[in-house]
Amino acid sequence: MTAMLFEELSRQASAYFQELQGRICATLEDLERLGGGSARFCDDHWSHHSGGGGVSRVLVDGVVFEKAGVSYSRVSGSFTEELAATMPGKGTAFVATGISLVIHPRNPHVPTVHANFRHIAKGSGDGRAAWFGGGSDLTPFYPRREDVLHFHRTWKTVCGLHAIADYSRFKKWCDGYFYLPHRQECRGVGGIFFDHLTEALDDVFAFVRDAGDQFLPAYVPIVERRMGELFTEAQRRWQLIRRGRYVEFNLLYDRGTMFGIKTGGRAESILMSLPLNVMWGYNEQPAPGSAEAELLEYLKPHDWAGESA
Amino acid sequence: MTAMLFEELSRQASAYFQELQGRICATLEDLERLGGGSARFCDDHWSHHSGGGGVSRVLVDGVVFEKAGVSYSRVSGSFTEELAATMPGKGTAFVATGISLVIHPRNPHVPTVHANFRHIAKGSGDGRAAWFGGGSDLTPFYPRREDVLHFHRTWKTVCGLHAIADYSRFKKWCDGYFYLPHRQECRGVGGIFFDHLTEALDDVFAFVRDAGDQFLPAYVPIVERRMGELFTEAQRRWQLIRRGRYVEFNLLYDRGTMFGIKTGGRAESILMSLPLNVMWGYNEQPAPGSAEAELLEYLKPHDWAGESA
Repeated sequence: MTAMLFEELSRQASAYFQELQGRICATLEDLERLGGGSARFCDDHWSHHSGGGGVSRVLVDGVVFEKAGVSYSRVSGSFTEELAATMPGKGTAFVATGISLVIHPRNPHVPTVHANFRHIAKGSGDGRAAWFGGGSDLTPFYPRREDVLHFHRTWKTVCGLHAIADYSRFKKWCDGYFYLPHRQECRGVGGIFFDHLTEALDDVFAFVRDAGDQFLPAYVPIVERRMGELFTEAQRRWQLIRRGRYVEFNLLYDRGTMFGIKTGGRAESILMSLPLNVMWGYNEQPAPGSAEAELLEYLKPHDWAGESA
Repeated sequence: MTAMLFEELSRQASAYFQELQGRICATLEDLERLGGGSARFCDDHWSHHSGGGGVSRVLVDGVVFEKAGVSYSRVSGSFTEELAATMPGKGTAFVATGISLVIHPRNPHVPTVHANFRHIAKGSGDGRAAWFGGGSDLTPFYPRREDVLHFHRTWKTVCGLHAIADYSRFKKWCDGYFYLPHRQECRGVGGIFFDHLTEALDDVFAFVRDAGDQFLPAYVPIVERRMGELFTEAQRRWQLIRRGRYVEFNLLYDRGTMFGIKTGGRAESILMSLPLNVMWGYNEQPAPGSAEAELLEYLKPHDWAGESA
């Protein structure tokens, strides 16, 4: 691929990610209104120290959404040698564009969700490489089978439409990536994850656009079904304790967070993924047979999309 | 030093740390009673997978102390080659004993505090090495000059009594260690930090005992002065937001946390340092001239002990 084509794909991907950001935020605001809230996204336009910039859109303290961060960016610069060595291509110069979002609903019956789609071009001359990465995963507190099946089936369907997308592989990749070794549990019920897809980039881009377009259909029906459910103080506390695990994953293991911090990214934009309210108790174990104990069973890899309804 | 002496020093240090744990917990319970509370420490005795064990003592949801974790342990095992290479001595076998505590008061006018003292013996035969490490640092939300001076002067005085303890060096070490690069601020107002003190171990142990004994005199007077002060909802929110920075440091940078996680330590014991309630807003900047803005001035290295009262 020539330098011009690399550049052109980065620009096209960037335009798509920015448009998707607007669409997702508008829908989340609609849901917030539907729940009787009036919270809106605030936009923060920022510049990266070594080139480019982005728009962080954050909604805080809504009725339906306690915190939702949807970030778009296109930045350029140089990776450290150490970081560059972990990626395809020679050289350290890069242009990265992407959309990244984490949504923390207030109601413990509505799962937290994360999605990210990105295009990175790295190096120069013959050593140049470019790739797409991304995915989406669901983190329920009181998992409902039909929600988990719906989420996974949506991604399986999208993958099925693209020869370059292997649902089974992307699903396992997701289970492996969003795993907390020190807790010996998955972050949630998974979804899909893929990275370093360097071949047939036009086909990959077509898949990424389709996947991006399917984020709202994968998540919104679950929000609509659960946002009106009643919950107790004890259920709220369980949600806050489980959010602690989310923070642990993001700060201890998440490559996206490390990437941002190590490339001198904007701390507030990188860490807008963290929930508004979080708790760490001590050794809080759910009672055997409780709904809370049931969650722990869901945090093990399982072929959800393969199950009959 | 012979193998027997290494072993004997580890046992003596262990006995001291365990005794100190009891003394600190008893005093914190007295303070909790003084504040009208009835919360008590719960004891958790645990075993390490590769040898030894410890006692985690945690007080949760008190009136004066929202969460306080005071842990004693003596564990043995093998470091990974990677981790072993960052320490004195040859070989990977180790015996580590220490006391580690983090206290999160409820009232935002009372600072959070951390202290840790440890003895580690590593390797075998001629490559054997042993050392002490430790320190204590203060993290106020609404800093008061007299509190900060008292804390630093206490440590300066202790160091002044021991030829092997250099307050100025240990103070700078602390400022450098408890620093958040991505926030470009110190975690708090510092204190002392030292590590890998491998020489004159009997003298170092005498210093470590003195320093351990001075933890309560360094911190308790500050608690007594501030625990009754009134605070607003806004001040409480500021405390919760600032606690987010504490979590960021512990999970992104703290070597003690990494050490525990990487050596297969007990997650609940390692992470008992995290506060009960925490918040992450978005880009919350204090108004210029506010008490909150004043805190940020305190989060820069400063020679507190050298100041006149």
